[in-house]
Amino acid sequence: MYSYSFPVRYYEADPMGIVHHSEYVRYFECCRNNWLDDCGYGVAECAADNIVFPVAKLDMRYKYSARFGDVVTVTTEIEEFTGARITMHQQVLNAEGKLCVDGHITLGFMNSKTGMVMRCPEKLAAIIEKELNKQ
Amino acid sequence: MYSYSFPVRYYEADPMGIVHHSEYVRYFECCRNNWLDDCGYGVAECAADNIVFPVAKLDMRYKYSARFGDVVTVTTEIEEFTGARITMHQQVLNAEGKLCVDGHITLGFMNSKTGMVMRCPEKLAAIIEKELNKQ
Amino acid sequence: MYSYSFPVRYYEADPMGIVHHSEYVRYFECCRNNWLDDCGYGVAECAADNIVFPVAKLDMRYKYSARFGDVVTVTTEIEEFTGARITMHQQVLNAEGKLCVDGHITLGFMNSKTGMVMRCPEKLAAIIEKELNKQ
Amino acid sequence: MYSYSFPVRYYEADPMGIVHHSEYVRYFECCRNNWLDDCGYGVAECAADNIVFPVAKLDMRYKYSARFGDVVTVTTEIEEFTGARITMHQQVLNAEGKLCVDGHITLGFMNSKTGMVMRCPEKLAAIIEKELNKQ
Repeated sequence: MYSYSFPVRYYEADPMGIVHHSEYVRYFECCRNNWLDDCGYGVAECAADNIVFPVAKLDMRYKYSARFGDVVTVTTEIEEFTGARITMHQQVLNAEGKLCVDGHITLGFMNSKTGMVMRCPEKLAAIIEKELNKQ
Repeated sequence: MYSYSFPVRYYEADPMGIVHHSEYVRYFECCRNNWLDDCGYGVAECAADNIVFPVAKLDMRYKYSARFGDVVTVTTEIEEFTGARITMHQQVLNAEGKLCVDGHITLGFMNSKTGMVMRCPEKLAAIIEKELNKQ
Repeated sequence: MYSYSFPVRYYEADPMGIVHHSEYVRYFECCRNNWLDDCGYGVAECAADNIVFPVAKLDMRYKYSARFGDVVTVTTEIEEFTGARITMHQQVLNAEGKLCVDGHITLGFMNSKTGMVMRCPEKLAAIIEKELNKQ
Repeated sequence: MYSYSFPVRYYEADPMGIVHHSEYVRYFECCRNNWLDDCGYGVAECAADNIVFPVAKLDMRYKYSARFGDVVTVTTEIEEFTGARITMHQQVLNAEGKLCVDGHITLGFMNSKTGMVMRCPEKLAAIIEKELNKQ
């Protein structure tokens, strides 16, 4: 399981004083992108190879509110990889380890030059398979 | 069914040129808030009466990308109201009427003074019931 | 003077309950983009013609806070156009007409294909000159 | 001079592929807030003591674009402290040390309970004076 920690930013908190529910969707993405960087084939490099990741579905369960002043930890774990799509299980926890948000996101693979959906290219598939085996 | 249309903002589009997937979560909220305003008991008034709406769960299905230059229409329909929670069915369509995102969001009711979850206060429940009957 | 009105969005307000100072920068952009649309040569069309608008400088004076629940009006006026750069005077007012933010932004012109700064292309320059004469 | 480094987030980049000009305003705030945390009297603690920091003015000079994939460094230096207001000089640099944005921001001090502007409270003023002496 990959994890990434960072402080909540002030502007991410809403008038209730809590992190806006849309921001966790962004936290998830930050963690996934850092994970891919860490695997040695980051999103910027993928983009240079014309690989982009359209989001197909997303579900979020909100359990507890993170606040400005909190340092949050976001986790990413591959749940399923079919070659055409990848589903990740992701969570946000606060500094006390309390689960704030639990979610799942499914991404496809698209050729950014043609705009066509495609199967996961080999180089990237090999990385994902390797990560799956480590989990 | 309540609907609300507005142009995509430039900063909402990402390097792929499409609206970032987190922005639709915000579009949903804008539409819900306008709907409540329209019902005569807006979020700002609710907040003044110490009623806030913690998000419990959210799911999104991404079908087609909206882009900068598009005018989108967001819809809101009450799916279920139990007194303790309300679930809305929401969609984002582009100007051609093509479905971009289909989603569901479940909100609770909280007393912002005590921070305690509560049942939907009577005045608001009456409005929701009236809307449900109109649908 | 071009003006554009819209309601403050919930997520744009911060824990102080006021619109975050970075959001006015976005409000300015929304108004400028709508103005250009209105002139018949919108940002999306400009982008299709490889014209983009890098921001060179920006200054903001914050006078009064807009809040969630407010409908704001944003204004745009051309202050100076040299052919190489355009400076706009922009303001945000609340529903009572109270000045919230007063600012100036200077944009250049760039060929998005070559990444090179350029003089304002003729078609666009003609539109800007026409607007300047109307002011 | 205080500095804070972090990777550009994907959603902060716009269709030009560069960090949206409004995001640097947020980067500045993140760095200021971390600096105050580091001084031992963070924004969350200040808020608990009813001290908030309304922005009075802001100017930004955009020199070079940061991109998704970049790690940026944001700096904060006190430029002037009058007791009623504080002005900070801030910059954003990319990983090669190239200056992306150069800016200045002036903040006031407000009692969040009364909503009244006030002079900088003593505890905070002592911290700022100490930092000024270190610079």
